[in-house]
Amino acid sequence: MANVKASTPKGTRDFNPLVMGRRNFIFDTLKKVFKKYGYQEIQTPSLENLETLTGKYGDEGDQLIFKILNSGDYFSKINKDLSNLNSASLTPKISEKALRYDLTVPFARYVVMHQNEITLPFKRFQIQPVWRADRPQKGRYREFFQCDVDVVGSDSLLNEAEFVAIYDEALSALGLKNFTIKINNRKILAGIAELIGKPELIVDLTVAIDKLDKIGLSGVIAELKNKGFNDGDINLIEPIILLKGSNDEKLSLLSEVLKNTEIGLLGIKEIRTLLTYVGNFNIETAHIEVDITLARGLNYYTGCIFEVKSNEVEMGSIGGGGRYDDLTRMFGLKGLTGVGISFGADRIYDVLDELNVFPANLNQSTQVLICVFGEEEEKYSLKLLQQLRAENISTEIMPFNIKIKKQMQYANDKNIPFTIIVGSTELESQAFTLKNMHTGEQNLFNAEALIKEIKENM
Amino acid sequence: MANVKASTPKGTRDFNPLVMGRRNFIFDTLKKVFKKYGYQEIQTPSLENLETLTGKYGDEGDQLIFKILNSGDYFSKINKDLSNLNSASLTPKISEKALRYDLTVPFARYVVMHQNEITLPFKRFQIQPVWRADRPQKGRYREFFQCDVDVVGSDSLLNEAEFVAIYDEALSALGLKNFTIKINNRKILAGIAELIGKPELIVDLTVAIDKLDKIGLSGVIAELKNKGFNDGDINLIEPIILLKGSNDEKLSLLSEVLKNTEIGLLGIKEIRTLLTYVGNFNIETAHIEVDITLARGLNYYTGCIFEVKSNEVEMGSIGGGGRYDDLTRMFGLKGLTGVGISFGADRIYDVLDELNVFPANLNQSTQVLICVFGEEEEKYSLKLLQQLRAENISTEIMPFNIKIKKQMQYANDKNIPFTIIVGSTELESQAFTLKNMHTGEQNLFNAEALIKEIKENM
Repeated sequence: MANVKASTPKGTRDFNPLVMGRRNFIFDTLKKVFKKYGYQEIQTPSLENLETLTGKYGDEGDQLIFKILNSGDYFSKINKDLSNLNSASLTPKISEKALRYDLTVPFARYVVMHQNEITLPFKRFQIQPVWRADRPQKGRYREFFQCDVDVVGSDSLLNEAEFVAIYDEALSALGLKNFTIKINNRKILAGIAELIGKPELIVDLTVAIDKLDKIGLSGVIAELKNKGFNDGDINLIEPIILLKGSNDEKLSLLSEVLKNTEIGLLGIKEIRTLLTYVGNFNIETAHIEVDITLARGLNYYTGCIFEVKSNEVEMGSIGGGGRYDDLTRMFGLKGLTGVGISFGADRIYDVLDELNVFPANLNQSTQVLICVFGEEEEKYSLKLLQQLRAENISTEIMPFNIKIKKQMQYANDKNIPFTIIVGSTELESQAFTLKNMHTGEQNLFNAEALIKEIKENM
Repeated sequence: MANVKASTPKGTRDFNPLVMGRRNFIFDTLKKVFKKYGYQEIQTPSLENLETLTGKYGDEGDQLIFKILNSGDYFSKINKDLSNLNSASLTPKISEKALRYDLTVPFARYVVMHQNEITLPFKRFQIQPVWRADRPQKGRYREFFQCDVDVVGSDSLLNEAEFVAIYDEALSALGLKNFTIKINNRKILAGIAELIGKPELIVDLTVAIDKLDKIGLSGVIAELKNKGFNDGDINLIEPIILLKGSNDEKLSLLSEVLKNTEIGLLGIKEIRTLLTYVGNFNIETAHIEVDITLARGLNYYTGCIFEVKSNEVEMGSIGGGGRYDDLTRMFGLKGLTGVGISFGADRIYDVLDELNVFPANLNQSTQVLICVFGEEEEKYSLKLLQQLRAENISTEIMPFNIKIKKQMQYANDKNIPFTIIVGSTELESQAFTLKNMHTGEQNLFNAEALIKEIKENM
């Protein structure tokens, strides 16, 4: 077979042991918190039927779904008019499956498919990769992990409050010291659209406001005008966008503005209930900020929405979510309310890396390396090797046919804290030389004393 | 959007919380053992360039690789002769990426790509899904997990011995009480081919012998004849295939038969060295059996090969592996020897399930459910909720707007061992009723005593 260059597809990554140690630290920390709150893990297949995914993420999303070519002699099976063949007409004929694009649609599909096995409220978490054919750029990958926590079947705002507590506890445990959880409610945005008398423009309003961070107030106003809002509408919307003050002040002002819209007032009431609940939790680190300009792109949200940002590192949101009232309807199950949040593991990684707050030694899987001068020494050391492992001490032995200098170099390269050196002296005295690789100190021990010494200094 | 039926592609699976608990038990047990032996985790992307995978798994394998359709208007970009278009000619024009088919080829690609960052010997493990467009059947899926452990850059047979120890320790820790690790050496098979004077037929010989379990001796003989072996050859091969006795007896007899083939004797010597090493390890459970008919399908093996089977459950191999001398050559890096083994996680799951030896309570993530009669009781319970979680006790609270009967039903369905019941009595006495769901016993406690009681009975 011809040689091919060793390379990976653009937008994908290999993870070396150091990076894996850090990624596992993030995933393990999240899992531990999710479980403490009673959420249970599920997994869904990487492949979904194409029709399960199509139409759920908007036209742009549909373009970004990775489609799988049908197996076998797929092309001979299709009914084709060669003269009219193009990508759009060909794709559904030669592709029936696609790669998971997010965890939310597969979760909705799961709930409907397994509705008879599930006890409501159903609380699940899911940590799996998703794939998007986006243009790769710094911090944006074609394969990345989502970490989602959702509960379906309970409309209590206590669930929303628990998600605020989960964000706070998990991100604090990961080492973040300064982050903000922004809260809004889609009903408030609906109230604003109703107030203006253009409820049909709610999506356009939401999409425009969502861009405030990126394009500034003037950009938002230009887009609103472009979408059919007039100067009078803008005069109503602008002070709401520019709302300042404490959460209480914002909500009071907003109550006044929205006093004639039932849905707007309901949104305010929901945020107040949520904040009361949150006040009963011990929030350790998070700043909680009501932000009326928070919109979240996805169409399926209907109630409270969240977004989390680090205040120490310039970065997009590291988490987000909200309540959706009818997510499973797309698979024929109506009236099931749910709320969920997501952690952006890759961005959280970048934030922790930039802040340099990853715990030390996440990569240090091997504690002890046994270095031997020859075949007899190798054989003599096998019992100790097993004794160390029986004590759950991660231990490697170097085969005798590797030069001793290279053995020690290996310990250095892998940052192994202890080496055990076995030469003729050790063999004759039936002992072992233990070297502490950090201090350079080395001493002769029998097996029992050596194990004790290592355990005391691990 | 139109409703679609909630379903998954054939050959793929959803994993519910119970199954996830059991799968994680398998993965966590394997990881713990791998780390104890000094192996470090890496991950590679799910997507590889199609040319990285093509030609590595034989013609049949190439057919089973899931190919990804190029993004965008892929069809307009190709230089096509519409009259000659067929699947074989079209695929490379419209697909540049594919889903990982195993972990071995991506590992070889990784080693070559990162050779300047790696210290040899490089010991890595990798637990990730792979995808094959195989016809789905019982126990065979289109998405399944492989768990691979490999070391490259050391030719010592001590590595092979450590893999025998890893199989033994990991499978014992998973609860298997009776399994066999079969050992052979490709050099012995090469010696047999040389002895017959038909070294060019080594692959056909290997493939035929590999089928002994499935098609029996007569089937193997028929296939050998079909491939060009004559009656004289069969007379030489048959007693070797039928070799019986202890490992020592088999090796002695074989030494006699292969005494004039250098490569055959080297194979025997390697197995003897391996068995001597293994004799120095405390093998807890595994039966070690030299099996000359073990061939392993893959072409890249060159030395010792392994296969593991349960002796309690009828099932294909639950693990296998071997030494390969030139795996990275396909990516331009020659002369790097390696040896590795794989655990078949899905089959191991089925074996443990059939033997009913999964530890109890792998699914029991929630320890305590707080059931409340009303809004005041809910608010009163929030402090206790946080105290329990602060003690690392997985705790849920039911929102007050769910009927108390449904709350208790939830505890039953989720097999939650403790419920805390909070009604007006508890509120008035500033206490909590703790119910042990297994015994039915219930008592009134203050918060502190309640936490103590739960911790003592968890």
